[in-house]
Amino acid sequence: MTTARGRRPGAPDTRAEVLTAARASFAEKGFRGTTIRAVAASAGVDPALVHHYFGTKDDLFVAALQIPVDPREVLAPVVAAGPDGAGERLLRTFLRVWDDPAVQPGLLAMVRSLITDDNGGLVRDAFIPVVVGPVLTGLVADRPEVRIPLVASQLMGLIVARYVVALPPLAAMPADDLVARVGPTLQHYLTGDLP
Amino acid sequence: MTTARGRRPGAPDTRAEVLTAARASFAEKGFRGTTIRAVAASAGVDPALVHHYFGTKDDLFVAALQIPVDPREVLAPVVAAGPDGAGERLLRTFLRVWDDPAVQPGLLAMVRSLITDDNGGLVRDAFIPVVVGPVLTGLVADRPEVRIPLVASQLMGLIVARYVVALPPLAAMPADDLVARVGPTLQHYLTGDLP
Repeated sequence: MTTARGRRPGAPDTRAEVLTAARASFAEKGFRGTTIRAVAASAGVDPALVHHYFGTKDDLFVAALQIPVDPREVLAPVVAAGPDGAGERLLRTFLRVWDDPAVQPGLLAMVRSLITDDNGGLVRDAFIPVVVGPVLTGLVADRPEVRIPLVASQLMGLIVARYVVALPPLAAMPADDLVARVGPTLQHYLTGDLP
Repeated sequence: MTTARGRRPGAPDTRAEVLTAARASFAEKGFRGTTIRAVAASAGVDPALVHHYFGTKDDLFVAALQIPVDPREVLAPVVAAGPDGAGERLLRTFLRVWDDPAVQPGLLAMVRSLITDDNGGLVRDAFIPVVVGPVLTGLVADRPEVRIPLVASQLMGLIVARYVVALPPLAAMPADDLVARVGPTLQHYLTGDLP
């Protein structure tokens, strides 16, 4: 294997090898079945090095998604501003990231990979409960285990309609209009009177 | 090609050949680019025979989806009962069909095929505007071109969350609970005060 920039010939690209091993393990064994120790062994490195490069297993999972943004960092300011108006703020932030032409292809590739190829388990066991769930929990008054999946269902539907299928008029709808029309749904799921 | 039941050896299975030609044409040329005439030519039959077997191009598209229900027939009684409570009725009907273990695998296969494989155009150009849109238009007071895609976005999100990804608790949530929680969203998109 050769790489383009400035590495000594033959030196192993350890970080990339760990990521490759991590992606293989998440895909084959799921999130719960993956351990830092096993990923390290598969990449032929010490577990401490994996921790050093990537942090926790959660962090390793986010890195393995190969997306240009960390959803936890993007969502932090949305949550910090509190529940009032959170539905609209959440959707505005979601659209700002997804509408960015530098970011969208990577996110679409992730979604296609997660929805197909039997990787749905990684959305179920890791992306929602481990990556975005704990952050969004700061926005809901009660029953985050019900409210956050409902929020996720509307956002997943927007991803499919606006970006995957490019359904008019959602595909080209200005963010302000979409926020005005769908923001109240998210607010309802986050803080509304839900049976 | 051989088939299992009761055909004379060598007799062409014309109906199946037309369907195969139709599926290939819809996938390659899209809905608008497909004509009954071209499908008939590709299957080596007369266009009148395609009309005789399948009806209109819309009907041929629904047949080519290879799903065990015709969405137009399923939705007709929902629409006939009028806009009041339509969100809940629509979702209840949607869940009854999707939760049916005899139907769900075929629907999931359709969704996976439509979302991936660059067949998103068939959702955009045919499934929503040609198959379900015209029926659901009977439920909305104004701007069906905005309201129906919003309804579609929430239903697509439920398909992904409940059936593709199997996200808890949506995956196992009793239909009554899901109708109580998401029905109002659909009702809002159908008839609510939408900016």
